[in-house]
Amino acid sequence: MAFPNTDTTRVACAQLTLDVGRPERNRAAARTAIERAAAAGAEVVVLPELTNSGYLFHDVAQAASLAEPLHGPTVADWTALARRHRLVVVGGLCERDEDGLIRNSAVLVDPQGLRAVHRKAHLFGSENEFFVPGTEPPPVVDTDVGRIGLMICYDQEFPEYVRALALHGADLLCVPVNWPLFPRPDGERPSEVIRVQANAATNRMFVAACDRTGTERGVTWTGGSVIVDLDGFPVAGPATETGDDLLIADCALASARDKGLGEHNDVLGDRRPELYRSIISSTDPQEEEAR
Amino acid sequence: MAFPNTDTTRVACAQLTLDVGRPERNRAAARTAIERAAAAGAEVVVLPELTNSGYLFHDVAQAASLAEPLHGPTVADWTALARRHRLVVVGGLCERDEDGLIRNSAVLVDPQGLRAVHRKAHLFGSENEFFVPGTEPPPVVDTDVGRIGLMICYDQEFPEYVRALALHGADLLCVPVNWPLFPRPDGERPSEVIRVQANAATNRMFVAACDRTGTERGVTWTGGSVIVDLDGFPVAGPATETGDDLLIADCALASARDKGLGEHNDVLGDRRPELYRSIISSTDPQEEEAR
Repeated sequence: MAFPNTDTTRVACAQLTLDVGRPERNRAAARTAIERAAAAGAEVVVLPELTNSGYLFHDVAQAASLAEPLHGPTVADWTALARRHRLVVVGGLCERDEDGLIRNSAVLVDPQGLRAVHRKAHLFGSENEFFVPGTEPPPVVDTDVGRIGLMICYDQEFPEYVRALALHGADLLCVPVNWPLFPRPDGERPSEVIRVQANAATNRMFVAACDRTGTERGVTWTGGSVIVDLDGFPVAGPATETGDDLLIADCALASARDKGLGEHNDVLGDRRPELYRSIISSTDPQEEEAR
Repeated sequence: MAFPNTDTTRVACAQLTLDVGRPERNRAAARTAIERAAAAGAEVVVLPELTNSGYLFHDVAQAASLAEPLHGPTVADWTALARRHRLVVVGGLCERDEDGLIRNSAVLVDPQGLRAVHRKAHLFGSENEFFVPGTEPPPVVDTDVGRIGLMICYDQEFPEYVRALALHGADLLCVPVNWPLFPRPDGERPSEVIRVQANAATNRMFVAACDRTGTERGVTWTGGSVIVDLDGFPVAGPATETGDDLLIADCALASARDKGLGEHNDVLGDRRPELYRSIISSTDPQEEEAR
């Protein structure tokens, strides 16, 4: 299929319940979800963060025991399904990397096989007890349906990281997430959903964030999966906390190549990089001034 | 008054109707709005973008005729009111600068007088026909109530620019805006409000955006003024399009000094500046790769 094209791409978020320490069960749930999405015509399926393992490890030993290599059973499952159904799968993986380090990763597989792995660069909560953070800018993969970028959960709360991905040409950002439920005022969307909306509008790219649901070792998950368009408005979701859910949206990914905003503006072209230098300094400007 | 303190600061957004080409009328409206805010106990009052001039100039000559210097009548008005009522005023000014250039500016005045001027760095629509863009990072002013940052309208749609301001220690970002009304899906907030929410949560700082209302030469304004807390939730507004409005919120500005998110995270400390270098490059990474 040639790209850009005038067609839309059917994007799905397969919001799941997952159980820490039950990898066979989790892999089966993911397989079923991908099959359901494929039956609904999905060309891109996004799964939650740490789909194989679950999230709330008892200890480091449990995290290590659940980690698997990129040539392990989860990626094998997803690759087989990607080939069978001619689709792209983006999902979260508790990974043991080539050096034996445990990573909170996301992979992109398509009919060609494993195309990219991203290791979460911004670790949340007690994740640094379990995982070694990534050291790379987020990847963007040129697939048959468009350029797809990957990041994981807390990564997308750093808009400078999201911007780097947009500048590398992503049409669609896929974000496996595990959003623990925080209190919020009545009638308000979760803060994480608001950030997804802002990231999409700021960069005029589609964003699909796939969350999980249910409770795990006392933690309730937000279940806020959402697919957002170039203007920052949801085209599917936000989902609710009520359980497994399949969000589907037809996204004109080619339209993300045009960063124009009216006749005079361009959300990337209007940037003033010379005014942003302080944000890549590793020194704290406050401390700098205090010296 | 010592800062940080345990008190809250009363922040107001004085959403106004303005008329292009009627500076006396606009200045009077601003004076009345500041007096109303002071009567309501406000310690910081934010006014819209281009409060003295209005926005939709007929031509360059009209913009030039409405521009005034920093020692002109508008800043004089605001300084007198800041002294009389012991408050901070942040407002938008069509400015003729010291070199005779016309600027879309925002000023901060307090009982000490004029403390800072910001010239809009990201121009929207046909503004580049009328204004010379600013060339500086956004200012942060240490006032008696806390550190207040300034930017104008489209500036805040560049989260890397907002981050620069947060890294310079702003507790509260005040944003005079003129948001033209764009269509949006039923039940959705304006995209600009979503960005304000995300900017606040991303940096754990308060943000007060003051819009205008009514119509001017056929353009309807969003009237979406909003004051947002550290978690990204509105504490006043979003206002509606129905006319002049005064938003008031008591904000614990000192709490913005703590960037912690739970016991393990810090929204500034968790940044990975080494992964963001590409965003300050002036070359387009896409073009770079194509070479």
